[in-house]
Amino acid sequence: MNAGVGAGALAFLHESRAQRVVFAPGQAAAACAEEAARLGVRRAMVIAAPSEAAIADAVAAGVPTAVRHDDVVMHVPVEVAERARRAAADGAVDAVVSVGGGSTTGLAKAVALTTGLPIVAVPTTYAGSEATDVWGLTEGVTKTTGVDARVLPRSVVYDATLLTTLPPELAVASGLNALAHCIDAMWGPRADPIDRVLAGEGIRALAAGLRAIVTAPSGLAGHEQTLYGAHLAAVAFASAGSGLHHKICHVLGGRFALPHAPTHAVVLPHVLALNAPAAPEARRRIAEALGTPDAVHGLADLYRTLAAPRSLRDLGMPEDGIAEAVEPILAAVPPHNPVPVDADRIAALLRAAWEGSEPR
Amino acid sequence: MNAGVGAGALAFLHESRAQRVVFAPGQAAAACAEEAARLGVRRAMVIAAPSEAAIADAVAAGVPTAVRHDDVVMHVPVEVAERARRAAADGAVDAVVSVGGGSTTGLAKAVALTTGLPIVAVPTTYAGSEATDVWGLTEGVTKTTGVDARVLPRSVVYDATLLTTLPPELAVASGLNALAHCIDAMWGPRADPIDRVLAGEGIRALAAGLRAIVTAPSGLAGHEQTLYGAHLAAVAFASAGSGLHHKICHVLGGRFALPHAPTHAVVLPHVLALNAPAAPEARRRIAEALGTPDAVHGLADLYRTLAAPRSLRDLGMPEDGIAEAVEPILAAVPPHNPVPVDADRIAALLRAAWEGSEPR
Repeated sequence: MNAGVGAGALAFLHESRAQRVVFAPGQAAAACAEEAARLGVRRAMVIAAPSEAAIADAVAAGVPTAVRHDDVVMHVPVEVAERARRAAADGAVDAVVSVGGGSTTGLAKAVALTTGLPIVAVPTTYAGSEATDVWGLTEGVTKTTGVDARVLPRSVVYDATLLTTLPPELAVASGLNALAHCIDAMWGPRADPIDRVLAGEGIRALAAGLRAIVTAPSGLAGHEQTLYGAHLAAVAFASAGSGLHHKICHVLGGRFALPHAPTHAVVLPHVLALNAPAAPEARRRIAEALGTPDAVHGLADLYRTLAAPRSLRDLGMPEDGIAEAVEPILAAVPPHNPVPVDADRIAALLRAAWEGSEPR
Repeated sequence: MNAGVGAGALAFLHESRAQRVVFAPGQAAAACAEEAARLGVRRAMVIAAPSEAAIADAVAAGVPTAVRHDDVVMHVPVEVAERARRAAADGAVDAVVSVGGGSTTGLAKAVALTTGLPIVAVPTTYAGSEATDVWGLTEGVTKTTGVDARVLPRSVVYDATLLTTLPPELAVASGLNALAHCIDAMWGPRADPIDRVLAGEGIRALAAGLRAIVTAPSGLAGHEQTLYGAHLAAVAFASAGSGLHHKICHVLGGRFALPHAPTHAVVLPHVLALNAPAAPEARRRIAEALGTPDAVHGLADLYRTLAAPRSLRDLGMPEDGIAEAVEPILAAVPPHNPVPVDADRIAALLRAAWEGSEPR
């Protein structure tokens, strides 16, 4: 909240960003060609990891391509970013088309950050980076993130048929990571009513989509809903900023090298149980979106249906990590968290998440 | 829907626009100064009608102002636009700050259209123009409208205390005009799920806000909710495009010189009753937002509470206008209206709206 905003009942700042979003199941190639043509692209750099080369071939078939780049590394190390920027300059490209998950989108953003080249993003996971203006680069073990309008893809092509081959466990963990974006967006430091509306719709779509995926893992309908929900999750989360949930996961992920999406999945119900009693509007919106009378119970019910990951122990976190993580988490607690937190509350939350016991 | 999008269950295009929106009850001056400072404004042109001069003085007190312009005329005649552009050029201004309703915002847009100057808009009605990239100019009796990214205000400052002195009848008609934006956005030619989510939240806020306004016309809470709803209404409507309701009102307003907002208020329940049976998702979302089991009955109940205008006859439309309006309305029916319409249906709808009888 900026200084100019008063203390009325409905005082907030909301900043919307310019982006074209095309949901085109089975039509990624046609949609991608059309978006590139709208931007006047003549010499694209197509970025895709080697494992997604065949998908990228198909998706970018109608885009005039000057450079193919497959040097993609997780967390976007600066030297990898530099090589991509050099390839873009050498090829005199006029746009970047990224086909892949968060690391691929992240590399396209690294190029856009210094060159201003427009991005057309075609995501193949539920990570959501394509819908945000957040970039990240890693130098050694240090990850730097920032916000820049230039890295927001101009167009995103969402084709759920590209996600139907995801193993269901991966889809569930990734979808619950998106759900965590929605729930944390309810009380993030810049959360506003518009963020909460978009996050609520995201929860509705993700819950429906993930339930459909566990029933029929390769069915299109579940992935369409999950992809739609993951998009809304990213938009809401980028606007609201990291809440308590993401601060906890950031500390845990960094210290104990835990897998990203499952860590989020495990921690989420515990943060919801902690914050819900003091966040009536969030609680109401989450419950409504889950179609249940109570948000905490509704999420527990969804987790049972999805056989979701439940314990940090199972993900490889050592038990003495609980005590170790309390202080760095306390230092990172965002302002205006609905519930005041102290060391005891954080320790109890971590203990429950580590054991996989019922939240609260 | 563009050609590149396939026939999947969830195929759509959504285009979001970049805008900062500040809801700052009682703090318009501070928020306006801050938004102008963010844009680096040094020589603003402040546009406000003579009747709002005092409000504009207060709101723009912290903005470095080079030109004050009060030559505002409804529907933005081209010669009025030309005079404002000349004043902007003569004053070497670097931004436009508009304080007022749709005509004032419209004049600021006319200046931005040819100059590219950024706009900070401070609306004093529920018209919603400040949240769209639509401009309009009138030459003689012909109104031309268009869409241009340059006319979308960079920042909007919403201060509900500026609206608490609106006469309640005017607030109700204007709020129902915004409600019509929301409902028509459910089935407009480019309507997508994101538009429908925003429109649903708009309906919720407008219904709550207007009920509060008729109970306590100068109370802040009702105007805050109504202003929030009117903003969402404009965003959703600009994205979805004019549906059947707006096409009907456009024909009626142009032919019979009917008052804008009350005409929308009268026609809306009849279009909803016509389309609702064939638009299940819209019906469900509208009912949910109104907090009632049925959308049509829910709207009728709201109208009773608000003592809303009910008859085109009372607004001055001649009875033989019904027959006269059928053909031009038929010619303007948007593609993909949920229900196929023919001359008989339009005539029956107009007859009911003219008489003020129960919809359908």
